[in-house]
Formats: sequence, structure tokens, C-alpha cells
Amino acid sequence: MARKLILDVDTGIDDALAIAYALASPELELIGVTCTYGNVEVDQAVRNSLAILELFGRRDIPVYAGPQPDGFEVMEISQFIHGVNGVGEAPLYDAERSVEPASAVDFMVRAAHHYGDDLVIVPVGPLTTVAAAVEQDPAFAERAHIVCMGGALTVPGNVTAYAEANINQDPDGADRVFRACKDITMIGLDVTLQTLLTVVESEEWEKLNTAGGDFLAKATNYYIKAYETTAPHLGGCGLHDPLAVAVAADPTLVSTLPINLKVDTDGPTRGRTIGDEMCLNDPVKSAHVAIDVDVERFLAEFMQRLTGLARETPVV
Amino acid sequence: MARKLILDVDTGIDDALAIAYALASPELELIGVTCTYGNVEVDQAVRNSLAILELFGRRDIPVYAGPQPDGFEVMEISQFIHGVNGVGEAPLYDAERSVEPASAVDFMVRAAHHYGDDLVIVPVGPLTTVAAAVEQDPAFAERAHIVCMGGALTVPGNVTAYAEANINQDPDGADRVFRACKDITMIGLDVTLQTLLTVVESEEWEKLNTAGGDFLAKATNYYIKAYETTAPHLGGCGLHDPLAVAVAADPTLVSTLPINLKVDTDGPTRGRTIGDEMCLNDPVKSAHVAIDVDVERFLAEFMQRLTGLARETPVV
Repeated sequence: MARKLILDVDTGIDDALAIAYALASPELELIGVTCTYGNVEVDQAVRNSLAILELFGRRDIPVYAGPQPDGFEVMEISQFIHGVNGVGEAPLYDAERSVEPASAVDFMVRAAHHYGDDLVIVPVGPLTTVAAAVEQDPAFAERAHIVCMGGALTVPGNVTAYAEANINQDPDGADRVFRACKDITMIGLDVTLQTLLTVVESEEWEKLNTAGGDFLAKATNYYIKAYETTAPHLGGCGLHDPLAVAVAADPTLVSTLPINLKVDTDGPTRGRTIGDEMCLNDPVKSAHVAIDVDVERFLAEFMQRLTGLARETPVV
Repeated sequence: MARKLILDVDTGIDDALAIAYALASPELELIGVTCTYGNVEVDQAVRNSLAILELFGRRDIPVYAGPQPDGFEVMEISQFIHGVNGVGEAPLYDAERSVEPASAVDFMVRAAHHYGDDLVIVPVGPLTTVAAAVEQDPAFAERAHIVCMGGALTVPGNVTAYAEANINQDPDGADRVFRACKDITMIGLDVTLQTLLTVVESEEWEKLNTAGGDFLAKATNYYIKAYETTAPHLGGCGLHDPLAVAVAADPTLVSTLPINLKVDTDGPTRGRTIGDEMCLNDPVKSAHVAIDVDVERFLAEFMQRLTGLARETPVV
């Protein structure tokens, strides 16, 4: 039986790829998309998520809006990487349906209670919504199984020398989540910067001549182009968010280090994900940090799944 | 055949324990002790190392002095942890013999050439002498097999939030070593703060009623007492330096992460050991960072070896 999945996104180009990966994964049943802020504002993340689900023929999957901190503004670098519309200026038709009336936090808490071990939550943006779920219901932290994209343990951050973008948006929320949650797998820059996509792959989508293929190719090409400026040494764009979904579908794609994690919330290293020295000798470790990834197998799965999904969309 | 060992120390209580571990290890043949600065000045490290070798009946092992930066002063915290004489005010009789006339750097370079793969170098202080060896002879970096105590990859530093004491003394030298050397194993706070000694163990040495047992117990008790102030949550003192020697003798004591390491030399994180993001996708990894340790097996080996060594010294 497929495992239920809640995907928490700030859609975002690699968030779009993550949604597509989830839809194309037989191991997972996407029961809801919750939207947070980061690459774009919550409203835009909702609009993009609804449109992407519609593009891939999945109007049955509900979309929820999460909280956005007062005064949040999209960072200039986020706009450079993801475009003003969040999906690299690729055209996306607004969906006919709307966001659900219930809040993302309520949905997450209820689902964790209802499905227990059959549910995995994959946050690929700031951990604000998950932190609110922890705060609303302490039992959530005990029950939830989380695979998040964020952080950097063995490599520098991408916003500062020590902070990764998702964690950097809400270090306090992330710290609460890492300290409270009993089962959290961190898919950070340690591994996501090893899984790179190039125009060789996006061309395969272009060749499909379908609406889905066109969208994936246009969005990804924008992303690849941004990476040529921000991280030219990589030779491709990092598949951050889809890797987290892939690990939720198949944990054997990564090897992990068991550790008790915290996020620095004070001082010069605010936003850093690091082992909690106070729990170093605690035999129980709540987090598993991915430190290596089977790049070849993930890329093969990624292309097979997304190409298969995009092939089924209308011909253009 | 035992592997040749050069131990590079700033003796220091745990350096003293590391020397004792090396003398008691059948897998290793200590061919020289090179002295650096850090816990104490080079001169004091030489005096302590000569005296410890004499205490354990090993006047045959040469001691060399390494370079000390102009204006170096022992940090207050180092003096608090190791005592003014470096070995917790435990009485040590000055050895009759003197330091070798050759420099530590020359000795290290010559030995690496002469012994090749049969030699392991274990620096447990700042990497200044090793960096000088790299500078003096580029072939040294290609040839040398190094197991160093220093750094912190998955946990905070112990001098600042990001810097460990040995690396903090000479971040530039450490960076040169990590970037140049082709085979370096890092035994950092990630694992050394998991290997703790308490008075239960030091009492075993006291009970021996030997010169060696007395010295080990007195020095270690001072160290344990300092840890009660500096890191009360640990419940013991960290066996930093001896763990590096133990891994040189038996690499299976730790599990390691292959990675290309650098040391931040600029900005707010100066002194941090971290993966080099520019080499993340290089299939060749020059460093192996210990991320887990078989605590029980190491502590058993540690006590068996040091107690056995101390038992053979004169009765008091």
C-alpha cells in the first residue's frame, strides 16, 4: 500500500519538480499539498500548486494555505533563482478550483493523528507550518514522520556561510521542530548539491511536446540558468526538493547519520543546523541527516518518473 | 609488523595520555615525538614529553621541537584545563636527556620519505608543524598518512560556536594541510566528546601504587575537575588525543565520512572545519571524518593499555 504523503511547499521551481515526483511515485499517495512562504509568498505558492496539480490532471488533491509571518518579503536572490511567478516565468494557467478553507496547520495535525505511521510529511520550505503544528499539539511531534529539505551539516550554507535558505527563513521554528520531533530525516545541501540536472535532461521533456513536458522544461531551464550565475562550479541545478520526496518514497537512496539536531538561534551562527552538544551521548537520536546519496539511481528515477508523468499530459 | 608512528603533541594532559597509549600499543612503534604549542608553549611541551617518556622507561624515543608563532601566549582557558605545567600540576621530574637538534619539520619530512606507507603521523595539537612540512616539501602531502585530533564537523566548536581549539590556534595552517594532504583522518569533537573518563577509572591507576599510575591519576583528576566547570553536562573528561592514537592503531574503532575538507580562514566562521563546497562532486575524497566511535571498545582498550603500562613503572 502506498504511504500517505503531505507535501509542504513554497512553490518554487524545485517545489514544482517535487510535486511532480510525488504524483509520479507509486510508493506515495499525495493526500494534500500545504503551502508556505519562501521562494514566493503563500498566495503565490497556493496559486502555483493548484495550477501544477491541474496541469497533471490531479484536481482531487486538496491544497491548504499555511501561515506567513507579518512583513515577509521574497528575497531578491529567491526571485532571481525562481522568477517573479516562482516557476521561472513558465506560463501556468490558474486552476479553476480554490484553496481549502481549513488551515494547513490543522490539516497536518489531523492527518498525523488519523494516519499515524502510514503518513509521511515532507516540508521543502521553511519549517514554520510544521512548527505551528508542534505548538498546537505536542502529540504531533511524537507521531509525525518527517523528511524535510533544509539545512547543511557538513557543507557551508547557501544564504550565509552557515545557513541554508529554508532554515534561514525561520531558524526559531526549525529549532523547535528539530528539538521536538521524534523522527525527522534531514535532506540538506550535503546531498542535494550532489544531485544536479542539466539541459541534457530538460531537453528530453521539451521533446515530448506535451503541456507537462513544456512546463517542466521551461521552469527547469530558468533554474539551470540561475545556477550558472549563483553556483557556476556545480555545472547544473540542485534537485533539492524532489530529493526529499524521493527519500520519502525510498529511504535507501541516501545514507544517514543519526544525530540530535538543533538550529542556532542566537549569535553569529543563527540559522546553522548542527548537532546538539548537550545530547551527544544520548543513545536515542531523533534526526537522521543524509550524508551521502546514490546520485545515479536517484537521477534515473527522477527522469523516468517525471518524463512518464509529463508524457500523459495533453499534446501541445 | 608495527606501524611507525610520529606523535605531534602540545603536552597537555590528554597529550600525555596519548603518549602513554602510543607506548602501550603493539600495533604502533613510536619513532619520535614532535612538540608544538597550544596547551603549553613548545619548550614546556618538550620538557613534559621528555619527562613522560622517561617515566615510562622510554629514553630511546627522540623528541623534536617544532615552530612556535611569535607572540604566542597560552590561553587562559588552556591553563585552566591543563594547569600551568601542562599536566595538571602533577609532579614530573625533568628528564636527563635533551631535545634533538634537528627540527620537528625536518624530522617529519624525512620520516615520510623514508617510511612511506609504513608511517602514520598523529598531530594532536595545532597543525602548524604539519603545515610547515607541507610547505617545505610538496611530496610530503602526497605521501603522508595523517590521523589528526582537531576540528568539529557535526557539533559546535569548543572555543567558539564553530571552532575547535587545535584548529582555532592556526586556521590557515590547518586549511593548507586539509587542502594539500591526500590521506587525512579527522578525529574531532564529533567523536572525542563521546569518549569520556571519570574518577572511577583514574582510581584504578591510583591503586597501582606506581610512579606511572600516580602520574596518570593526578593529571587526569585535574582534567576531570576542569571539565566539571567547563562542560558539566558531559559527566567526565574528553579523551581527545588518545582517541586519535587509538584510531591510528585500529581504524575500525570509528566510522568515517569521506569528504573534502577545508577550514574557514576568513569571516565570522574563521576556524571552522567544513566540507569544501567546490569539491562536493569530486569522486576522490582526501579526508575521512570520524562521525561515530565504538565507545565501549575504545574505553576498554584505553584502560587495559594504560593500566598495563603504568603497572610496569617503579613502585612508590
